Amino acid sequence: MSQNNIPYKIYLSEDEIPKQWYNVRADMKNKPAPLLNPATLQPMGFDDLRPVFCDELIKQELDDTTAYIDIPDEIRSFYKMYRPAPLVRAYCLEKALGTPAKIYYKFEGNNTSGSHKLNSAIVQAYYAKQQGLKGVTTETGAGQWGTALSMASAYLGIDCKVYMVKVSYEQKPFRREVMRTYGASVTPSPSMDTEIGRKINAEHPGTTGSLGCAISEAVEVATKTEGYRYVLGSVLNQVLLHQTVIGLEAKAALDKYGITPDIIIGCAGGGSNLGGLISPFMGEKLRGEKDYQIIAIEPASCPSFTRGKFAYDFCDTGMVCPLAKMYTLGSNFIPSANHAGGLRYHGMSPILSQLYHDGYMEARSVEQTAVFEAAEQFARVEGILPAPESSHAIRAAIDEALKCKETGEEKTILFGLTGTGYFDIVAYQKFNDGEMSDYIPTDEELEKSFATLPKVNI
Amino acid sequence: MSQNNIPYKIYLSEDEIPKQWYNVRADMKNKPAPLLNPATLQPMGFDDLRPVFCDELIKQELDDTTAYIDIPDEIRSFYKMYRPAPLVRAYCLEKALGTPAKIYYKFEGNNTSGSHKLNSAIVQAYYAKQQGLKGVTTETGAGQWGTALSMASAYLGIDCKVYMVKVSYEQKPFRREVMRTYGASVTPSPSMDTEIGRKINAEHPGTTGSLGCAISEAVEVATKTEGYRYVLGSVLNQVLLHQTVIGLEAKAALDKYGITPDIIIGCAGGGSNLGGLISPFMGEKLRGEKDYQIIAIEPASCPSFTRGKFAYDFCDTGMVCPLAKMYTLGSNFIPSANHAGGLRYHGMSPILSQLYHDGYMEARSVEQTAVFEAAEQFARVEGILPAPESSHAIRAAIDEALKCKETGEEKTILFGLTGTGYFDIVAYQKFNDGEMSDYIPTDEELEKSFATLPKVNI
Repeated sequence: MSQNNIPYKIYLSEDEIPKQWYNVRADMKNKPAPLLNPATLQPMGFDDLRPVFCDELIKQELDDTTAYIDIPDEIRSFYKMYRPAPLVRAYCLEKALGTPAKIYYKFEGNNTSGSHKLNSAIVQAYYAKQQGLKGVTTETGAGQWGTALSMASAYLGIDCKVYMVKVSYEQKPFRREVMRTYGASVTPSPSMDTEIGRKINAEHPGTTGSLGCAISEAVEVATKTEGYRYVLGSVLNQVLLHQTVIGLEAKAALDKYGITPDIIIGCAGGGSNLGGLISPFMGEKLRGEKDYQIIAIEPASCPSFTRGKFAYDFCDTGMVCPLAKMYTLGSNFIPSANHAGGLRYHGMSPILSQLYHDGYMEARSVEQTAVFEAAEQFARVEGILPAPESSHAIRAAIDEALKCKETGEEKTILFGLTGTGYFDIVAYQKFNDGEMSDYIPTDEELEKSFATLPKVNI
Repeated sequence: MSQNNIPYKIYLSEDEIPKQWYNVRADMKNKPAPLLNPATLQPMGFDDLRPVFCDELIKQELDDTTAYIDIPDEIRSFYKMYRPAPLVRAYCLEKALGTPAKIYYKFEGNNTSGSHKLNSAIVQAYYAKQQGLKGVTTETGAGQWGTALSMASAYLGIDCKVYMVKVSYEQKPFRREVMRTYGASVTPSPSMDTEIGRKINAEHPGTTGSLGCAISEAVEVATKTEGYRYVLGSVLNQVLLHQTVIGLEAKAALDKYGITPDIIIGCAGGGSNLGGLISPFMGEKLRGEKDYQIIAIEPASCPSFTRGKFAYDFCDTGMVCPLAKMYTLGSNFIPSANHAGGLRYHGMSPILSQLYHDGYMEARSVEQTAVFEAAEQFARVEGILPAPESSHAIRAAIDEALKCKETGEEKTILFGLTGTGYFDIVAYQKFNDGEMSDYIPTDEELEKSFATLPKVNI
């Protein structure tokens, strides 16, 4: 079938929602490095991780050989509330750009959390309930992950405690109310409820917080409260595993019409969306079956792939969490205050870090005014008001499509549209009022941050 | 097929998006009464309406005999950006209620305007462009209609001027930014830009505005500005016509699985969603082919069906618009300040008013705390955070399902979920904080308002 006869939106049937997640680690020759105990700096096994994570999720975290892992029926039922997510052909954007490129996006925003985060939230809440726990704790940045976990917890009837990065808590108070509507408790981080929160507040008075700091607080509460475990919305191997429903559905939809993308683009904060989107394609690339150009897009203000170091680092500011080998800016890196939206984590998924290090994918950084220009252009022709995070991928997709316009190449571009911007209106208002600015950290700032990297000989 | 084997979401294919709107007036024995000229009190014809509305839309407004009207291809292309809208089986809500009832809802919230309003906005903007106009003016209440018209205007490249009810402009400033992102100008109403705005501000200092007043302003600007026409998001016959895509898709999806609803429920403000949803079913009822229980749900604080008079009244506060025969609370009725969300119009669609008057449908009013209780329950199990407007229908659907639980009846309930509540978080916060209150206008208040009804002998 010609790519001119593709529907605007390709929906799979509910039977075609994946029955298994795909574990890309099974096809990686160089496996991602193991997590290390922050006290002993030794690799952590199942028992070491039990105080923090649910048992079944630890198994998934450590399993780097099983290629396919079954999705429990109850989770597939939940997925049916908002999946399959549509694969959209961006006809109107193509027309507006005058490009010969064919642009597709996998849209994950048609649910109340407003993003793909729900795909992993329901899994982690499910296994917590299966283990007989009372509840879960977590951090949230822009609030998408916290909202997703609140929704999943409400659905399953377990408790949910969210530590929300203070700058987001203040700039995006409305997300707090959505989480409360779903029955979660929401605390701005750093708080005075935890040891690490009090310490950070004392050392950095007036801090606007960071994901790394909120993680420390949520982990502290989980390990000190009977019947609770900590769950995380990105970075971890298990999260990328759950998010492969994005890529598996996207690939199934493309395969149905015989379409092979040339370029695959995703925004990258901790890597959950990008990893989920690209995994099935990356699997083919790793097995030498097909080749794809795979591009991670990150903010110039938080450039972990493009300017970070590939090293062991703490996952959190408080240095209580396991260490991961990843591209990192240093665990006390905090993006400048003018940075809007998410993608503000100092590190990057160990899986993606290894793949990037081994040359299987590229990374680029973009500045936020250029990102919002792309967001506005996209919104006006495609109808969807995109999340700032997702708009990083839109920026790159538009740039690639414009290159095709110059060269005349009819490339097929696939990108991940992770969510909607309905709760990012403060940032849009700044952009509308011409008050948005860019910031790129200096080399000196980064060197200072790198100086906090732990010395690890492994 | 058993109703236990229905998917969670029934999606039609893009080919199945309706190719014609259905004009229920063609099947009505008692036609809705004609619009009257506010100066002469005589029925208005095509030429009388030309200063206010686009030509093609006037034809649709006046046509009460043609049963099916073709949808232009360019409008169907736009529809494909967010349609077909899913018909959802509320399995999780049914389970939570423990009801033998089968509950379905037609979900119109999967677009950035957050509601069904986009279905008519694109049509009205399209015909304005076809007529070579520069732009359109309109009013908006909660902001859904204004956002929808901004999106449609941006897509087609025409100008859009929105007068927004002041209380919504202040309580929901984020909608303003969405409209601005789509390039619209947004003015709080009553403003000082128009004669009628200045008059109302002088007579009612500190007024929070009303839809009726914003309509007056938008009409004044349209009639006094070269190349502009006025467009309206509800009430008018043409709007109900456009919105029949909701009911036509819902019916096609149900027919595909051999399902016949027993009860059809919709929220009613000006009647656009309700009229659109029920029209194809009402057509069968009017032709004596089938019977359905059809229920309009309105706020107890703005009870035009249940406590209004069926009489000719002004459509706007400024008394510059045509008069319509409808259920009305009087054109200067303004809901109490504690009323959250939309559904605040003083009148009701003349088509629906006639059908209600002739006994083809029922109406009920509900109080807003009960509405938000239903909204929260629905959100937690069905995942979607509903608009307050839509939650009126949820309240009634839950009540009917609970009746079935008592009687053991396995009724099939269809309701319209018009949109999402992402921009109604101030109201949700009030509810979460236990600060939401109810208000029912007294008989004396209504009598005072009825006293302003014009004397019309027709």
